[in-house]
Amino acid sequence: MLFAVTMRVSLPTDLDPAVRDDILAREKAYSQELQRAGKWPHIWRIAGQYANLSIFDVDTNEELHQLLWNLPLFPYLSVDIQPLAEHPSDIRPS
Amino acid sequence: MLFAVTMRVSLPTDLDPAVRDDILAREKAYSQELQRAGKWPHIWRIAGQYANLSIFDVDTNEELHQLLWNLPLFPYLSVDIQPLAEHPSDIRPS
Amino acid sequence: MLFAVTMRVSLPTDLDPAVRDDILAREKAYSQELQRAGKWPHIWRIAGQYANLSIFDVDTNEELHQLLWNLPLFPYLSVDIQPLAEHPSDIRPS
Amino acid sequence: MLFAVTMRVSLPTDLDPAVRDDILAREKAYSQELQRAGKWPHIWRIAGQYANLSIFDVDTNEELHQLLWNLPLFPYLSVDIQPLAEHPSDIRPS
Amino acid sequence: MLFAVTMRVSLPTDLDPAVRDDILAREKAYSQELQRAGKWPHIWRIAGQYANLSIFDVDTNEELHQLLWNLPLFPYLSVDIQPLAEHPSDIRPS
Amino acid sequence: MLFAVTMRVSLPTDLDPAVRDDILAREKAYSQELQRAGKWPHIWRIAGQYANLSIFDVDTNEELHQLLWNLPLFPYLSVDIQPLAEHPSDIRPS
Amino acid sequence: MLFAVTMRVSLPTDLDPAVRDDILAREKAYSQELQRAGKWPHIWRIAGQYANLSIFDVDTNEELHQLLWNLPLFPYLSVDIQPLAEHPSDIRPS
Amino acid sequence: MLFAVTMRVSLPTDLDPAVRDDILAREKAYSQELQRAGKWPHIWRIAGQYANLSIFDVDTNEELHQLLWNLPLFPYLSVDIQPLAEHPSDIRPS
Amino acid sequence: MLFAVTMRVSLPTDLDPAVRDDILAREKAYSQELQRAGKWPHIWRIAGQYANLSIFDVDTNEELHQLLWNLPLFPYLSVDIQPLAEHPSDIRPS
Amino acid sequence: MLFAVTMRVSLPTDLDPAVRDDILAREKAYSQELQRAGKWPHIWRIAGQYANLSIFDVDTNEELHQLLWNLPLFPYLSVDIQPLAEHPSDIRPS
Repeated sequence: MLFAVTMRVSLPTDLDPAVRDDILAREKAYSQELQRAGKWPHIWRIAGQYANLSIFDVDTNEELHQLLWNLPLFPYLSVDIQPLAEHPSDIRPS
Repeated sequence: MLFAVTMRVSLPTDLDPAVRDDILAREKAYSQELQRAGKWPHIWRIAGQYANLSIFDVDTNEELHQLLWNLPLFPYLSVDIQPLAEHPSDIRPS
Repeated sequence: MLFAVTMRVSLPTDLDPAVRDDILAREKAYSQELQRAGKWPHIWRIAGQYANLSIFDVDTNEELHQLLWNLPLFPYLSVDIQPLAEHPSDIRPS
Repeated sequence: MLFAVTMRVSLPTDLDPAVRDDILAREKAYSQELQRAGKWPHIWRIAGQYANLSIFDVDTNEELHQLLWNLPLFPYLSVDIQPLAEHPSDIRPS
Repeated sequence: MLFAVTMRVSLPTDLDPAVRDDILAREKAYSQELQRAGKWPHIWRIAGQYANLSIFDVDTNEELHQLLWNLPLFPYLSVDIQPLAEHPSDIRPS
Repeated sequence: MLFAVTMRVSLPTDLDPAVRDDILAREKAYSQELQRAGKWPHIWRIAGQYANLSIFDVDTNEELHQLLWNLPLFPYLSVDIQPLAEHPSDIRPS
Repeated sequence: MLFAVTMRVSLPTDLDPAVRDDILAREKAYSQELQRAGKWPHIWRIAGQYANLSIFDVDTNEELHQLLWNLPLFPYLSVDIQPLAEHPSDIRPS
Repeated sequence: MLFAVTMRVSLPTDLDPAVRDDILAREKAYSQELQRAGKWPHIWRIAGQYANLSIFDVDTNEELHQLLWNLPLFPYLSVDIQPLAEHPSDIRPS
Repeated sequence: MLFAVTMRVSLPTDLDPAVRDDILAREKAYSQELQRAGKWPHIWRIAGQYANLSIFDVDTNEELHQLLWNLPLFPYLSVDIQPLAEHPSDIRPS
Repeated sequence: MLFAVTMRVSLPTDLDPAVRDDILAREKAYSQELQRAGKWPHIWRIAGQYANLSIFDVDTNEELHQLLWNLPLFPYLSVDIQPLAEHPSDIRPS
């Protein structure tokens, strides 16, 4: 079950660089672990923005929430979510 | 080169059903032709909306514009576009 | 799996009254059938608005989309959707 | 008398963790006390957000205001309220 | 129990003048009947707008909804509602 | 001459409690003095919000501005103003 | 007493040209009469828009409302109003 | 050549009072110098707001930008600009 | 003197094709005449939109307004204007 | 391939002046280097704003993103991007 998730990042410009680097390293590891597990099949940078457009593949809303809530960057994100369904013009078998 | 494109459809509720069916049939054929050509790699229905989230894969802004402008539904669409780039956490080789 | 769905109705003021009555009768029957099936556990009128706040209980985004798309009033609705998850303070066992 | 209440939480990212934990513990206790008293019959997490959608059941606007104003998290909330009424399609006896 | 209600009127500019006059006459009679009954204690024109700011005094959200839904102008209104409570600085005994 | 004034309060959550108490005490005294003088005939709490809806009765825009500018809370307020006029359906003699 | 009034005009593109010309001729005459009477001391076209920014000089909100309500173009306008006061840096004696 | 300029002021509530007084004194002197030079023919307080509506009379966009950029309050302002032209109903000779 | 002008086109979907073709032919001729005269140095299609971003080079706001007002498409446009000035980092001599 | 990029700058008013001067000097050098390389063919100040409207000429979305991400001012910018295409009325050979 797919969801489109847009994440916009607002890190304080005066955040301690070591804290920042630690958060970003953990974020990257966490994201790549979910990508490898097939839960986060797409992540694109939105050009010119500190933001990404992602597709999540989860079994329930509950799972989606837990995955996002545990993002190391979560306290610095604004998140927008759109549940997705199959489009009748899609040529790929569902 | 990828773009996220959100299309929202507003068909007049009093549109002649035959005209409507014709537009929608041509739209579907046109979309599937572009999907088969690799220009429109993803199309998802946004759940509960007469709208879709699509990913286009084109060589230039010019090509993107021509593909969208020629959509049979174009006069009835509001379109939002985000240019995409590779995300540094993406595990897939670019 | 729960979703909060807000539906706002915009019927043209010059719609044929017989057409209108027919749509509204079919909408009511359809809604009550889904309520009895446990798919639409809550529907509230938003006071002073031609709008409702509803809770849907479905297995997938796909099912949510099909239920909403088939609403007789769908062409006259603007729809807003929020996927819901369990709240950690909720006292009810999940 | 029902109200739909959406609460969005904005805790400063540099809030003292002990202060934060204390506020959250008091918030949870307060919420559960109101749930047990039947004043707060539903609370759902909005998936992917630090936010909830709640239904309050109160006798007056005054009571609603007092319950919300006394939330330990109130200074950190943005709150949106919709008064609810019975929907004519609701199958449950009122 | 008080509610602030803002009503903005959008009458089609090509509405039949006789229909329009009839709606407006019934709206005025209905409003004055509710004013005399103490249900609609204040109605002010918002200067320069085809709109009013009103205060309703009702027992329940349900009553508020029924009063507004039955306004002859209801199909032509956009309505905004704010539930009101006593202000701690108010000098009037409640 | 009446104006509807909506005031929304944003006090910093880390404001010194003594400073805060002093501002709020002066605000209350100032408000009640204007109420007694007939300049501020209505003040209602907007339920669930740190905000009020007020009606001011002044001779000029200038007077309105001076009364609001001198509010002890003014630096912490966002203010929205609507000039009011008599409504043709109002049953009260003007 | 001054008010800044922004008027945006939306004439239907299929309006009968004779009706349109008549409305515009009456609007111009009405505006010039109020200008000569000192009630409408400034009217500027907002460049590139079918809109104007005007300053009205009236005794009361009531007078402002009546002047605007009687504009021949009123049913086709969206109007935004800001009450003005003397600025402490203004070098002109008030 | 006229421009309508709306300036909204957001001074931090914890700004050093001496710094604040100095900025405001320089702002007032600068504004009055431009008023005397005929560059800033109108400045009005927007009632109830820490904001003004001004009319600037300049030869070029460049001159407008330099005048605004050099405002002592500029770092604390949000500015909105509308280029103005002669209105065909204006009775004053241009 | 430069202005950035964004024009968004909304042609009714039921406009007579002959009328539409005539407007568009006149619009193109008018635009190209202004481009050749140096008044409209840039016009770009905004990709995926029935809209353009243009740069106008005019002597006054008045001239800008007259050029835009006389566009054959003007009644079908929404227009947004930003006056431009020289940027201090621009390497081109002004 | 062209993109219109609007950059709005929000420097904290309490930023250390030496840090600020350093960022701005590096920003100017970086911008001028890209201008000389033909990547940033236009940069205009938006009059009265701490903002610019720029045109970028790049080969891919990826290149656009890298150029913007490396702006010394990037952490202080809000950025809006519109992909541009050739306009059919443009008289310049493409």
